[in-house]
Amino acid sequence: MEFDLTVHLNPAYRIRIARGTLQQVRIPEKQVVVIADSQIAPLYAPALIASLEQGGSSVYLLTIPAGEVAKTLAIHAQLLSQLAQLGLTRDSAVVALGGGATSDLAGYVAASYLRGIAFYVCPTTLLAMVDASVGGKTGVNLPEGKNLVGAFHQPKAVFMDTNTLESLPLRTFREGAAELFKHGLLANPQLCAAVLETGFNATHSNLEQTLASGVQVKIDIVERDPTEQNERAYLNFGHTLAHALEAITHHAVPHGEAVGYGMHYAALLGKNMGYTDLSPQTKAFLEYQRPMPLPELNWVSVRDFMARDKKADNAGVRFVLLEAIGKPKLERVPEAVLEQTWAGFLAFLAA
Amino acid sequence: MEFDLTVHLNPAYRIRIARGTLQQVRIPEKQVVVIADSQIAPLYAPALIASLEQGGSSVYLLTIPAGEVAKTLAIHAQLLSQLAQLGLTRDSAVVALGGGATSDLAGYVAASYLRGIAFYVCPTTLLAMVDASVGGKTGVNLPEGKNLVGAFHQPKAVFMDTNTLESLPLRTFREGAAELFKHGLLANPQLCAAVLETGFNATHSNLEQTLASGVQVKIDIVERDPTEQNERAYLNFGHTLAHALEAITHHAVPHGEAVGYGMHYAALLGKNMGYTDLSPQTKAFLEYQRPMPLPELNWVSVRDFMARDKKADNAGVRFVLLEAIGKPKLERVPEAVLEQTWAGFLAFLAA
Repeated sequence: MEFDLTVHLNPAYRIRIARGTLQQVRIPEKQVVVIADSQIAPLYAPALIASLEQGGSSVYLLTIPAGEVAKTLAIHAQLLSQLAQLGLTRDSAVVALGGGATSDLAGYVAASYLRGIAFYVCPTTLLAMVDASVGGKTGVNLPEGKNLVGAFHQPKAVFMDTNTLESLPLRTFREGAAELFKHGLLANPQLCAAVLETGFNATHSNLEQTLASGVQVKIDIVERDPTEQNERAYLNFGHTLAHALEAITHHAVPHGEAVGYGMHYAALLGKNMGYTDLSPQTKAFLEYQRPMPLPELNWVSVRDFMARDKKADNAGVRFVLLEAIGKPKLERVPEAVLEQTWAGFLAFLAA
Repeated sequence: MEFDLTVHLNPAYRIRIARGTLQQVRIPEKQVVVIADSQIAPLYAPALIASLEQGGSSVYLLTIPAGEVAKTLAIHAQLLSQLAQLGLTRDSAVVALGGGATSDLAGYVAASYLRGIAFYVCPTTLLAMVDASVGGKTGVNLPEGKNLVGAFHQPKAVFMDTNTLESLPLRTFREGAAELFKHGLLANPQLCAAVLETGFNATHSNLEQTLASGVQVKIDIVERDPTEQNERAYLNFGHTLAHALEAITHHAVPHGEAVGYGMHYAALLGKNMGYTDLSPQTKAFLEYQRPMPLPELNWVSVRDFMARDKKADNAGVRFVLLEAIGKPKLERVPEAVLEQTWAGFLAFLAA
């Protein structure tokens, strides 16, 4: 099955979901830099480069370290110098090939070079397909915290080749499922059910349909709020704790698993604030996801890292809570409730 | 005389031109970082900070090295970490106090932190008032060239205190006059005449009026083309050679003087391409400006640096030429004409 979705921003752009689409990437720019990490480049760069060259582009490949460690201002600066040395001009393009860390970094390079050149995304992980490759958020980390630096820079098109998901470890696939499940909780309960179906993995017959539904939830939200002034913050459901877990463990806990945990903490918070108890659902998801066990964590340091969240303002941290499935809201949670819920969360982990 | 100009972008913002306006800066943000260089900070930061604090803001002062050397990705990264350490949130603000290098850098910091927070500019040089502080171009240099990295990030307001111009060396004042003169050539011949009036300096009775006229030319162009897709490139009149002169001399030739020279080269180019001969006007301006003599320059290296200009595309470098005063156009100039005009330019310098 193939799906073509459209993001109605100015300018509008297309998201293609299909097996083998990496072999059919054509873009108008003549000078193109592909940015991929050292693990992904050998797997998929040859096919992508061949297809870009068939379309008449000259292509350079720049490789970066694999994983979140690449998202630094130092590597951002190196890549920008490489673009300048290659003589890229305003009508050149950057193509990200890989996971969310690669598209976050490559997108921020494209946003920064000459104050912004064309950007395309070819995500190769489920997480990147559902989350990072749609919506134009780009950026890198600071030593002080994750994603504290960046730009909104929409891609000109996104090419999702679901064949690439077959090379993912099942654990990595299930990381992406966390964002699909989150989109289900935010707007589409059927999506939650689809993710929890027996055997939901890279060869599942409903994969493209489920992916398209999950991406559409994000598109709808991004269209209504492209620069995260309000509603778009709902996509951060589960992410306040998730980012803290990643920071504290120096990314030993991978993003999708951190989000799995974060959604459960947020569901418990919602319950303790008097809303619908969605913790049975987030627990069912964790049972599907089977994330790595968390190390021992100190509440003060968890609390400190959560306070650096982007949704924080001078009055404190705000959480995305669900009054019910499909009813997210942004709310300041009293300090006592945060800590009491943390105790409940630890009890769940220990069970 | 006081002037309030409005830039009609989304959102619109105000530019205030008045003596003493630094004592009356009020902004709604509660957490504010003032970025100033080590020379400007002792002169004007106390007044600015006092006025921000009277308005209820908490203010931190971060100082940077003076001049173009501060516009690096390394200092950009340092400032971003400092913002994170100070705990700045999305409803905080960055205020640039100083010349164009400071507002370019501080603006790019504001554009990058949390993908963009509020930004204000208090320019203290004529050059920054006429050019850098209006229009939202922010950025830093790469080792490979000037302004190759950055973002469009409009300020929320600009406060131009013309009292600050009295502490400028006359030579620095005349640097800014180059941009005023350029705006005159682009759209308002009376402005050229005002700049060439006897005694045009920081105490001239027509200063605020002339400044307001010059800023208005830029506002008109920026409003029609906020992200430099087309017409805004005209503001680069004289800048293709200017940026090359700055790069080759490692900024020994200051920007405004480089623009003075660059306008004359561009006028000679226009003449050699068969347009109105405006070189008498640009020569008259150089006689007013009295820039430092240029060192010996090698054409091949000048040509090479000009080829890195942002207006370059795959087919070569384009110049802003004037068919006549008020009639700019963007045009590719044949290689032979570029070199022949360079010979004419050197002859003028030697005369």
